[in-house]
Amino acid sequence: MKKYVFGVDVGGTTIKMGFFTVEGELLEKWEIPTRRENNSENVLPDIAAAIDGKLAEKGISKEEVSGVGFGVPGPVTKEGIIKMNANLGWRDKHAAKELGELTGLPCMGGNDVRTAGLGEMWKGGAAEYKNAVFLTLGTGVGSAIIIEGNVILGAMGAAGEIGHIKVDMEETEACGCGGIGCAEQYASATGIVRMAKKKLAESEKASVLREEEVTAKAVFDAYKAGDELATEVVEKFGHYLGYSLAATAAVLDPEAFIIGGGVSKAGDILLDVVQKYYKQYVWPGCRDKKFVLAKLGNDAGIYGAASYVL
Amino acid sequence: MKKYVFGVDVGGTTIKMGFFTVEGELLEKWEIPTRRENNSENVLPDIAAAIDGKLAEKGISKEEVSGVGFGVPGPVTKEGIIKMNANLGWRDKHAAKELGELTGLPCMGGNDVRTAGLGEMWKGGAAEYKNAVFLTLGTGVGSAIIIEGNVILGAMGAAGEIGHIKVDMEETEACGCGGIGCAEQYASATGIVRMAKKKLAESEKASVLREEEVTAKAVFDAYKAGDELATEVVEKFGHYLGYSLAATAAVLDPEAFIIGGGVSKAGDILLDVVQKYYKQYVWPGCRDKKFVLAKLGNDAGIYGAASYVL
Repeated sequence: MKKYVFGVDVGGTTIKMGFFTVEGELLEKWEIPTRRENNSENVLPDIAAAIDGKLAEKGISKEEVSGVGFGVPGPVTKEGIIKMNANLGWRDKHAAKELGELTGLPCMGGNDVRTAGLGEMWKGGAAEYKNAVFLTLGTGVGSAIIIEGNVILGAMGAAGEIGHIKVDMEETEACGCGGIGCAEQYASATGIVRMAKKKLAESEKASVLREEEVTAKAVFDAYKAGDELATEVVEKFGHYLGYSLAATAAVLDPEAFIIGGGVSKAGDILLDVVQKYYKQYVWPGCRDKKFVLAKLGNDAGIYGAASYVL
Repeated sequence: MKKYVFGVDVGGTTIKMGFFTVEGELLEKWEIPTRRENNSENVLPDIAAAIDGKLAEKGISKEEVSGVGFGVPGPVTKEGIIKMNANLGWRDKHAAKELGELTGLPCMGGNDVRTAGLGEMWKGGAAEYKNAVFLTLGTGVGSAIIIEGNVILGAMGAAGEIGHIKVDMEETEACGCGGIGCAEQYASATGIVRMAKKKLAESEKASVLREEEVTAKAVFDAYKAGDELATEVVEKFGHYLGYSLAATAAVLDPEAFIIGGGVSKAGDILLDVVQKYYKQYVWPGCRDKKFVLAKLGNDAGIYGAASYVL
């Protein structure tokens, strides 16, 4: 009888570990460092050791464990193979198979953003939807496309690059992808800071943002306080993200957009400004989609990872 | 032993009937009129009678027939229910169930554009792809989104409204949907004619289009002959359709775009101009998607319909 499952979220600095019941109750979570030296050769053995340690500590046998799911940044094939991960130094690494051999447990994995989307679908903001778009607004803009309860991969594992829909044909700076005018240049935390700094440099307008470190949080706080310059930034953020989601809705007709990532901590005020522009651009039949905040925060990854093996 | 299957494509004027082997060989096709009087009450009985007639003519028993698939314009639920079809006057019509009772055969159906997409996937231009976007460029712009071999429906049966991605923020005329600047206003046959007429009225530029009826075909023929005004129209067509497909690729990461409908008769020259702009706007990882012409023409619908029951 399988009672437990592990969910592992591999980041560039730390590995988040989650120990769950098969019903999805998070019993315990902890972190271990991501040892990236020598092409991260210790990462999978460290995860296996952490699992063995936790089972020994609890006196639980492997027969009671359903398996281990994991999420890692970048593309991951259906078989759990990482073709290329510059951050971890992995290339053609069959992570699912290797971790399976190290732990003696069934292992499955996928891209971290999609894994977080699965987590929100399993126990978070997307739980009531079978067709949804999960977005993380952080350093970049990531998304997971959920169709009939499954996160789709696309032909090359690149479905959900919504952040690279072109939204501003007048932009002069390039996006990290090499394109110009991508949604990510306005809708990510990095993009919000970039826009704010540009506006601060271009005008003499008074703003509380001149007196503190410019972060996405500071911009949204200033917006909530009525700061004019911050309002211009947030309106532009909402405009371009709203436009991108309207284009996405025309393709997919989802039930809902679930918005997570650091920027989403701004709360309902963020949903309001995105929806204002979304409704301006969207095909009328898709006007009334739900916009909800993600619920699991940094735990979405371990939840989603655990759900892979269930 | 099931040897045969029927595919039925219900249009506003005629109903196309196809009689196939279960391997997908089209044995015979014919048309019957769409009798729309009294809310099209005769349409399903007429289809049933045509099927009975064909089987009697061939001396084939119903035991040898796998079933009947059909495509109709507008949204159709998974269960084959037509919630609302203004053209046929149907409302909450359980077409699959009714046709099943009339024929004594298993019946399934779906939206006509998606059905044509299934046809191209089964025996046409999309046959080698599991993830593809099928487009019909005709009076409007329709599309079928194929994910892992299935045509997706979306939350309300509205997935694939790519024609309503907003592409021109300077547009002053409204689209049929009520929005302004939709891709369909430039990428459909109607849109091409509209753009050409506008350009002819706005300038004194010489053009062969001043001497003939302006149709999408005439515009593409003039473009092939080097006509300057027609070139401006076709470039704008390619620009906006290319942009829309780049946004679509960012969401889906398909393997290929399959382009059908009347406008696609312009041939490879159409694919070239769309790809030129697609590559300008798309996320670099999706640059090298296939662009192919649909192969089945007006028969795509009967092929796709037949494939529903197989």
